[in-house]
Amino acid sequence: MKKQLFHLALPLIIGWIMISCSASGPLSVTIPAPRANENPRKDYTKILYETLERHPSQKLKMVFEPGTYHFYPDHATGKYHAITNHSNLYRYFAFPLTEYESVEIEGNGAEFIFHGVITPFLIERSRNIAIRNLQIDWEYPFYLQAEITGKNETTKEVDIRVDTTISRPVYRDGRLRIQGPGWQFDYLGQNITFDPTTRAVAFMAETARLPIDDLPAEKIDEVNYRIKWDRSATLPEPGHIVTFRGAMSENRLAPAFHISGSHEVTLQDITIYHCPGMGVIGEKSADITLERVRVMPRKGSGRIASSMADATHFCNCGGKLIVRDCLFMNMLDDGINVHGTYTSVKEIRNRSEIIASLNHFQQSDFHFADRGDSLRIVDAQTLLPRQTCTVKKVEKINEYLFRIITESPLTEEIAPGDGIENITWYPTEFIFSGNTIKNNRARGILLSVPSKCLIENNTISVMKNAILFEGDLSHWFESGAVRNVVIRNNHFGECSYGGGNFPLLSINPQISAFKPNEYYEKNILFTDNTIASSFSNLIQGHGVYGLTVQDNKFVKTNTYDDPFRGEPIIRLHHCGGVTINNNQFENHSPVIEIDSATFNDNFQTDIHDVIPRAEE
Amino acid sequence: MKKQLFHLALPLIIGWIMISCSASGPLSVTIPAPRANENPRKDYTKILYETLERHPSQKLKMVFEPGTYHFYPDHATGKYHAITNHSNLYRYFAFPLTEYESVEIEGNGAEFIFHGVITPFLIERSRNIAIRNLQIDWEYPFYLQAEITGKNETTKEVDIRVDTTISRPVYRDGRLRIQGPGWQFDYLGQNITFDPTTRAVAFMAETARLPIDDLPAEKIDEVNYRIKWDRSATLPEPGHIVTFRGAMSENRLAPAFHISGSHEVTLQDITIYHCPGMGVIGEKSADITLERVRVMPRKGSGRIASSMADATHFCNCGGKLIVRDCLFMNMLDDGINVHGTYTSVKEIRNRSEIIASLNHFQQSDFHFADRGDSLRIVDAQTLLPRQTCTVKKVEKINEYLFRIITESPLTEEIAPGDGIENITWYPTEFIFSGNTIKNNRARGILLSVPSKCLIENNTISVMKNAILFEGDLSHWFESGAVRNVVIRNNHFGECSYGGGNFPLLSINPQISAFKPNEYYEKNILFTDNTIASSFSNLIQGHGVYGLTVQDNKFVKTNTYDDPFRGEPIIRLHHCGGVTINNNQFENHSPVIEIDSATFNDNFQTDIHDVIPRAEE
Repeated sequence: MKKQLFHLALPLIIGWIMISCSASGPLSVTIPAPRANENPRKDYTKILYETLERHPSQKLKMVFEPGTYHFYPDHATGKYHAITNHSNLYRYFAFPLTEYESVEIEGNGAEFIFHGVITPFLIERSRNIAIRNLQIDWEYPFYLQAEITGKNETTKEVDIRVDTTISRPVYRDGRLRIQGPGWQFDYLGQNITFDPTTRAVAFMAETARLPIDDLPAEKIDEVNYRIKWDRSATLPEPGHIVTFRGAMSENRLAPAFHISGSHEVTLQDITIYHCPGMGVIGEKSADITLERVRVMPRKGSGRIASSMADATHFCNCGGKLIVRDCLFMNMLDDGINVHGTYTSVKEIRNRSEIIASLNHFQQSDFHFADRGDSLRIVDAQTLLPRQTCTVKKVEKINEYLFRIITESPLTEEIAPGDGIENITWYPTEFIFSGNTIKNNRARGILLSVPSKCLIENNTISVMKNAILFEGDLSHWFESGAVRNVVIRNNHFGECSYGGGNFPLLSINPQISAFKPNEYYEKNILFTDNTIASSFSNLIQGHGVYGLTVQDNKFVKTNTYDDPFRGEPIIRLHHCGGVTINNNQFENHSPVIEIDSATFNDNFQTDIHDVIPRAEE
Repeated sequence: MKKQLFHLALPLIIGWIMISCSASGPLSVTIPAPRANENPRKDYTKILYETLERHPSQKLKMVFEPGTYHFYPDHATGKYHAITNHSNLYRYFAFPLTEYESVEIEGNGAEFIFHGVITPFLIERSRNIAIRNLQIDWEYPFYLQAEITGKNETTKEVDIRVDTTISRPVYRDGRLRIQGPGWQFDYLGQNITFDPTTRAVAFMAETARLPIDDLPAEKIDEVNYRIKWDRSATLPEPGHIVTFRGAMSENRLAPAFHISGSHEVTLQDITIYHCPGMGVIGEKSADITLERVRVMPRKGSGRIASSMADATHFCNCGGKLIVRDCLFMNMLDDGINVHGTYTSVKEIRNRSEIIASLNHFQQSDFHFADRGDSLRIVDAQTLLPRQTCTVKKVEKINEYLFRIITESPLTEEIAPGDGIENITWYPTEFIFSGNTIKNNRARGILLSVPSKCLIENNTISVMKNAILFEGDLSHWFESGAVRNVVIRNNHFGECSYGGGNFPLLSINPQISAFKPNEYYEKNILFTDNTIASSFSNLIQGHGVYGLTVQDNKFVKTNTYDDPFRGEPIIRLHHCGGVTINNNQFENHSPVIEIDSATFNDNFQTDIHDVIPRAEE
């Protein structure tokens, strides 16, 4: 079973761990909860390693007794470690499942409490891993939570009262610093306000967000501080709750689960109350299933936020990706993001050799491609395909640059700046079903894969887009175009309430030039959904062929004041094959705004008010 | 010759590089300087890699034409990289000599200009490497240089004028930030003042040093700033020059030369004007020779400082270590430090197995020991040996912890906290001859190796100790005790002038308990030196047996006001076998202060004034 636990091989001093084994099944090892005469906060990392080491050649089932287990980085195995969409750093791991086959971890509802900068689960170059029935939390979260106690519109100052039952900041040299054991954020950094009544991100919270990291604070007393709040359009409301989570460059330290280069990974009945990164991040892995995974603040903890970043995120994953009956709430970033990676052409050495580059700092050291993979090269402006080729060889130069040798010659039209996506590494199928996403900062679902995608029976209520399609070669460098998406039987509650124009359904590939009758995205069916939103700007899109919006029910609520009142409910340009039929509208007077290109390319609707796009 | 240039293998597009080869000698490849029709600042990293790649199995001589060559990190090969006494980080390398044998680089006086965070020379797991006749500099230094233009003793504020011909800081959010291409120090950090007349660290500069990193600044105009200077005993003098070099945790990014796991390395006629780390750092390498290596500010540049840290530093190096006819001046840290590493016993698993720990953050990931190495375990309090043992196996747990299995049983007296030094990895001989160390911050020579050491014909003038012996298991964790040191025919100019009690010759092992008649250091002969110093506190020591001070000439100068006037010239306690004879004293009335233990253990002197140690 075990191939490599880095270079660690601790010996056996765990006589009291119970071991049982049947002829056919895996070896079952019970990890005992702390006994009455033991330190209830003792470090379990060593006990885990000893268990893994003791059984190097068997299929293993680790069974935790119900109870609370603590994990610290001090004795944990470590290595320099890159995780896409996180910081790369020297990491420590509680469960370092590197090159394992057939490991089952049964938590029996156990609670795992982590201390400081430690990554709970690393599943790396492994196969057939199942983890079930456990809860993950941190002693101290990596964000600072405070109540807005006052604001001064004249001096542009905001007073906050830190909730010291949740976080223990220090004040030094004019700065409030977020800290915990072994770590400190010198800057308050990324911030967002929540409404204590809804426990969701506050209405128009984006307008009160400070866009810089280094926020000086004046100390009033041990818990009360005054912050200069002069770089946002509005000030946050007294009574609201603000979270600060440090600078973006340093606040993604550890996901709860990092799945990399692995196959057949199942997570079931797992609750992630907090983690200093994403809940689950999968990269270059196939056949991942999440069932009843919950990312949510712990009830009764008073904490307003759950994970520091996205609940779930899958980058260049293959096979079947299934996310079912999950609950993602109060994250400080998106619900789920399924995409590939656009690298870019940096230099063309000859017709079968290019120097390519990763571009976003949180993609650095991403393992982009291997021999035999199929790559698609896309035009820098239109994102439309130029050529597909097969990799003969890849050589890494540094964390950003690598050399690609292709099997066959590259076309002359390829130019520096063009994008490259790895089309071998996309899911065959993505099913997102029966899930709830709510109250978090940012978006619900981001989808940029050509796979067969089914999004059904979900409930979504988020401050920005509920669903966003957004391949881009300019900011996040997330590929690619969709080809077959069904969005049906979902309930969309209030979305887009954080301020700004973030339509509930947004098809927004970052294209700087369109080609007539050529489209980036294809085949999006939005059907049998109910949309109960206060806002009028519900669907916007461009660059898609085959968008069908039918049999939905749009109910205009009045929870929030609608700054888009009277504006078109659907806005499209440079689309083709659009059908908008048989939708029900309550309290809406539906208007569709389209450009002539969309109108002239197989457009059908039963809505009367179709107006031309203003800027034409 | 070449085994591995990471995973990079760039092809050949360098037709105009001249290649010549004789039957017996190495293949000689000439690297041409930029031609008149070329960008004079073009990046040479790729040309270097192509040259190295082209000749994978030959002894290679790379010959640079006289001229100026530029190197940038953008296309440089990279990897996560640990360097002792530096930060561990993802580094980029201009000359990545990993697993090479027999490479000669002839610079012909060429000037290599580096841009941003890039390490010039990595010599790693290589053998027989010689580098000659070149100059190393950076476009922008990693420190900020400014003139003190005013001070206010009442408000404790100091005004500075930034020298923008040298550094290009940015001011943002109340902080002056040091920056260059691809890097930024958010904190002004470590600081020291220089006297523009002497171009050396200023008299009593330590008392005006701010001991914190985060130093808010008030902007007066683009070049003038006001800094709150309320955490030092004194304020710096107007007219003096101050350097800030960022926080200690982040300001050791790249040495000019990193020599690791290598044998037979020679550096000759090399000038290092600047580097963001140490000039030369050697670790776990044998037979290193430096001749006419100069670490100094470039003449005419206006820059007051050279390297950001020590000029040279050798940790657990073996074989013959020779440093001859070098010039080390104006570094922001020591001249040379030759030592081993004390790790410490963390946990005793059984009589042949211990968990050991590296302790200082800048030692993390240091490769401490291999199978077959001899380790000496020392008592935590006395630093005296407990046992010597042979390594059977070493297993790394993380960047700090590792497990050691020993060949034979460990004694019962070994306890957690005890030190462990690797006595296989010390030089057989260390020769430091004909060198000059001057004007830098901190010390001249630090010596903590049991090797045969010869320090002769040097000229030293530094703000703290000229020579310091200081094994410690508490702060820097630098082993070990000396056994055979000859210091002769050196000229010591003004030392110790930076403030505080830092005697010219200091034998200062960090021992918290002494054992009667047992001594940490042994056999230090200080003879035929001239000492021309303003200060009275010239030699201090404890824990040494066999200290001989004879045939020296001590001349008291009056360059600086002596706060130690009237105090003993030599102070010793817990020493044995001390001989102080036949020294000449000019303008000194020599007094020796010793404790009774020293007096009673073979003490000899021809000096009349011997007084008992005050605290006895």
